[in-house]
Amino acid sequence: MDNLFAERINALRQIMESNGWDAVVVSGSDPHSSEYPAPRWQQVRWLCGFTGEAGDLVITRDHAGLWTDSRYFIQALSQLEGTGVELHKTRLPDSISIPSWLSDKARTVAVDGLCWNVAAIEEITDALGEGGLVVDVPDMLQTLWEDRPMIPVTPVTTLDVDTFGGISRQEKLSWLRKWMLLEDVDRMLLTSLDEIAWMLNVRGSDIDYNPLVISYLLVSQDEVRWFVKKPSAFADPDTLDSFNELEMDDIIVDDYDAVFFALSDFSGEDNPVTLFVDPSTLNHHLYSYVQDSYPPEMLRCGTSPVILQKSIKTISEIDNLRQTHIDDGAAMERFLYWLETEVASGREITEWEASEMLTSLRAEIPGYRGNSFENISAYGANAALPHYSTPEEGSSFIKPSGLYLVDSGGQYLTGTTDITRTVPMGECTNLQKEDYTLVLKGMIDLSMAVFPKGTAGCQIDALARMPLWKAKRNFGHGTGHGIGYYLCVHEGPQSIRYQYNPQPLLPGMVTSNEPGLYREGMHGIRHENIVLCKEAGSSEFGDWLDFETLTCCHIDTSAILPELVDKEELDWLNSYNEHVFRTLSPLLPEHIAQWLRIKTLPLK
Amino acid sequence: MDNLFAERINALRQIMESNGWDAVVVSGSDPHSSEYPAPRWQQVRWLCGFTGEAGDLVITRDHAGLWTDSRYFIQALSQLEGTGVELHKTRLPDSISIPSWLSDKARTVAVDGLCWNVAAIEEITDALGEGGLVVDVPDMLQTLWEDRPMIPVTPVTTLDVDTFGGISRQEKLSWLRKWMLLEDVDRMLLTSLDEIAWMLNVRGSDIDYNPLVISYLLVSQDEVRWFVKKPSAFADPDTLDSFNELEMDDIIVDDYDAVFFALSDFSGEDNPVTLFVDPSTLNHHLYSYVQDSYPPEMLRCGTSPVILQKSIKTISEIDNLRQTHIDDGAAMERFLYWLETEVASGREITEWEASEMLTSLRAEIPGYRGNSFENISAYGANAALPHYSTPEEGSSFIKPSGLYLVDSGGQYLTGTTDITRTVPMGECTNLQKEDYTLVLKGMIDLSMAVFPKGTAGCQIDALARMPLWKAKRNFGHGTGHGIGYYLCVHEGPQSIRYQYNPQPLLPGMVTSNEPGLYREGMHGIRHENIVLCKEAGSSEFGDWLDFETLTCCHIDTSAILPELVDKEELDWLNSYNEHVFRTLSPLLPEHIAQWLRIKTLPLK
Repeated sequence: MDNLFAERINALRQIMESNGWDAVVVSGSDPHSSEYPAPRWQQVRWLCGFTGEAGDLVITRDHAGLWTDSRYFIQALSQLEGTGVELHKTRLPDSISIPSWLSDKARTVAVDGLCWNVAAIEEITDALGEGGLVVDVPDMLQTLWEDRPMIPVTPVTTLDVDTFGGISRQEKLSWLRKWMLLEDVDRMLLTSLDEIAWMLNVRGSDIDYNPLVISYLLVSQDEVRWFVKKPSAFADPDTLDSFNELEMDDIIVDDYDAVFFALSDFSGEDNPVTLFVDPSTLNHHLYSYVQDSYPPEMLRCGTSPVILQKSIKTISEIDNLRQTHIDDGAAMERFLYWLETEVASGREITEWEASEMLTSLRAEIPGYRGNSFENISAYGANAALPHYSTPEEGSSFIKPSGLYLVDSGGQYLTGTTDITRTVPMGECTNLQKEDYTLVLKGMIDLSMAVFPKGTAGCQIDALARMPLWKAKRNFGHGTGHGIGYYLCVHEGPQSIRYQYNPQPLLPGMVTSNEPGLYREGMHGIRHENIVLCKEAGSSEFGDWLDFETLTCCHIDTSAILPELVDKEELDWLNSYNEHVFRTLSPLLPEHIAQWLRIKTLPLK
Repeated sequence: MDNLFAERINALRQIMESNGWDAVVVSGSDPHSSEYPAPRWQQVRWLCGFTGEAGDLVITRDHAGLWTDSRYFIQALSQLEGTGVELHKTRLPDSISIPSWLSDKARTVAVDGLCWNVAAIEEITDALGEGGLVVDVPDMLQTLWEDRPMIPVTPVTTLDVDTFGGISRQEKLSWLRKWMLLEDVDRMLLTSLDEIAWMLNVRGSDIDYNPLVISYLLVSQDEVRWFVKKPSAFADPDTLDSFNELEMDDIIVDDYDAVFFALSDFSGEDNPVTLFVDPSTLNHHLYSYVQDSYPPEMLRCGTSPVILQKSIKTISEIDNLRQTHIDDGAAMERFLYWLETEVASGREITEWEASEMLTSLRAEIPGYRGNSFENISAYGANAALPHYSTPEEGSSFIKPSGLYLVDSGGQYLTGTTDITRTVPMGECTNLQKEDYTLVLKGMIDLSMAVFPKGTAGCQIDALARMPLWKAKRNFGHGTGHGIGYYLCVHEGPQSIRYQYNPQPLLPGMVTSNEPGLYREGMHGIRHENIVLCKEAGSSEFGDWLDFETLTCCHIDTSAILPELVDKEELDWLNSYNEHVFRTLSPLLPEHIAQWLRIKTLPLK
């Protein structure tokens, strides 16, 4: 296997040599800056075997390097073995970015301009400086990658807002058009797949775990044009109905590739129009077409307003989300009950079996449309990889001691879930208990936060870390990410991170709360709930916000060191577990409800 | 009195009219962007009577407005009464800055370019846009202000680093010159008074509470030129000695105003040199000279490196600071004992008397050189003004109930102190106790923080606010400011604030920790200690920092609601008070030590 990747890289090096390129930079993303690309664009994986969700590859004549963040350090080291590819760690204080690294090592850098956004290519161009050259070679790997997958064409469905929440596409378009008028924008190009799905109330399955349709959307005051692979006449009836519905709503459906011609044609000297694009998701290759036809003064580059609008869930979406988290929590409880009783009874359960069982329990929920990401089912030291990928073959057995971590979520017509529970399977070491308790304290402290309107997630991130920090422990990932509504499990613009992000948390935003602690070779812990940012009233000191925890699944108290927990935290925990019991027990079989009663008895 | 200010503003309006100016913007600062200007530059005060430490005035033909922040809202409203000047609140979410406000109200704006820094004038110029004009009229008020004070000339002293800590001016100059070489800077102009005092190890008393000498400093590789009002031959011996010492150290002393000619002359076509200036403290008027003689490519504008270097106290400075805070704390304890016994015995003490008593106790400390700011001695509702100015005549009596707030500090040859204690004088209402306890919890929570290297103050500010936030209460000022070493009581670059400031807290930085709570017409509470940022060791998760509390003065436990305090906070408080008792009791008379023993008995 190792040789295969080294061979592929060498083949690419030959192309480099014959073209006079000093370096090739291969993106881990797709033409829409998606976090998870469809197989066609998993070029980094094809070249070096790394399966992590974030990673870019740089190949020069004498070096090959993978840039990825702390979630994937351990995994990358293991997967890159023998490929000759070295790990470059990102998001560390002394990290060197790809552009900086390239600056003194290459003059001519080739990229697949389809898979890099404008901002990224500008960074590389700036870093190369005068005399540097970025060569755009769309579908660069095409000649090497013989069985490269096609652009996926999968069933498409439309969402009925009366049943599934949210607001109609016509209302959304009318909001966007008002924004365009205010901003003096004649045409607006949406390039991010989740923005397009949200805008049109369409969902597909072109990308695993992400209910998206690979497409572009061009909106003007009098026309909406959707560039997408059209279904054949033999497609499933729901897909055909969906396209009909869109066309009845005056959405013009055009071919996916037609976007290039549309953007070349659209501007004229007689009647110049302004075009808005978001350089953070517009790909470099398409941008070069835009630049050829739109003079700079007619181009508006900025952050798409859809991102913020989409992050603020509507009342009907929130109502649905509450119920979806209850249903999802009931499946989780069935799973946790099954796991505990099976392992206690001496059956040998693997991480993979557990993961499959959890998926099958979720699949019973009405409206289930798949998982929202690949289940992380990790026992013992495996959980020290925050994004462990459970192998189908040869995954570890879950033993009746230590900690098992399960991070999973569902896609439902009524929302997206994401939950992590760390489960004490039996006897735990004192260090495990300490880590378990400190991480939990952080999650609780953040859950209890109240903060003035205008506060950004980065201003309260330290709450979730301080219990760990006081013990000189820390975790390398963010504390919270936004979550879509039957959309991507990661979305912006808000986050709860150590890094600066000025976006205030707004009422209606849904964010994860997931501190963790990872000890390589020992154990990994993460406690993750989804929280809704809500109005918490006003006082003479201003307007206040707080969090409502949407996730509804008990937190195991058996690994808690009670002496480390203060009264306020304990009260929160006991009241949360009691709430979980009261909410879920009517939905569970009698024997599981009885088990849950025991699991949720107040601590201390 | 009111009429006087209205008359002055009207006189200025006549000048405006005859010159065709639409607006005059009057700065609350001096030619060095000092926070506290000498009387000569208290132009805002002279024009409208406002005595707050931060405030700028805008006068148009039909409007006069004072821009100031929440510390001064109540005071400004009271002082501006009858002047016709309206209050414009700054640092609020919907605050409109002076440049934005002016943008659609004026085309021609006159300023005293000496008292505005480059950055501020650039903002105004940008806001006015095309067709707008900023007219620089140095000493604009000269003709109206008949008895305007002169530029002060006060005694100057040099600091012996062996006795008073820090490092020698030669070492500092050599550090700066190395920095200049690295940054390709031939000449460096220092314009901020505390940077100059730090650089040369000189102190003066040109500005109340700030041991500064009004001057500029120009450093090149082969020359150091100090532009300052020279002492007459009849000046005090220490001043004359100080100037001699500087000249023996090859510091060329030149006249204060000669800086204009020096910067006009210095650059030549034959031998072009680069000049570094910091636009945040360089005044607009001097900058216009610089711009006339230095072509843009020879000008380096940026943040002076002295600011960061100065903020990191040396080991000898830190040793001295610890002792200085002990001495200062002993004076505070004498004061608090005196206050409690006097008031309890029925004597009628005014805020002013208390303030004077406190100053006289500090004055007994060897090395005392004055207060570091005007004592805030405020009883009851007066304390609701975070920067209450205690009047000499007619200040309130301190009664044996409710809360008395005293915020004060000393300038010593061995450091600067700043401490606030809120003193329960007897019976307190439940609301007073709640506020007292919640503010204290915030101060303690921040004191106990441990955080990874690289963390900025704004990332941990929420710790000091969360106990208040949870009760939907808040305070409008920052939580912590840097403090100079026998220098300004406020210094950068670090801060602990709600607002973004990316400067990481570094070992050796000294910062205040001072949450508060203010209820207009009722009471004001602030608990303030000075904390030193220190290395706290390393772990597999990185390098850690924490705080050592330097302030040494007990915290009164009588107004604490123990049920609101968690165990960790209680332990911190009891251990702090015990530390204060053990440290100070040997320095206090027996009866005060006995009193302090009672005051510091552990709570609960």
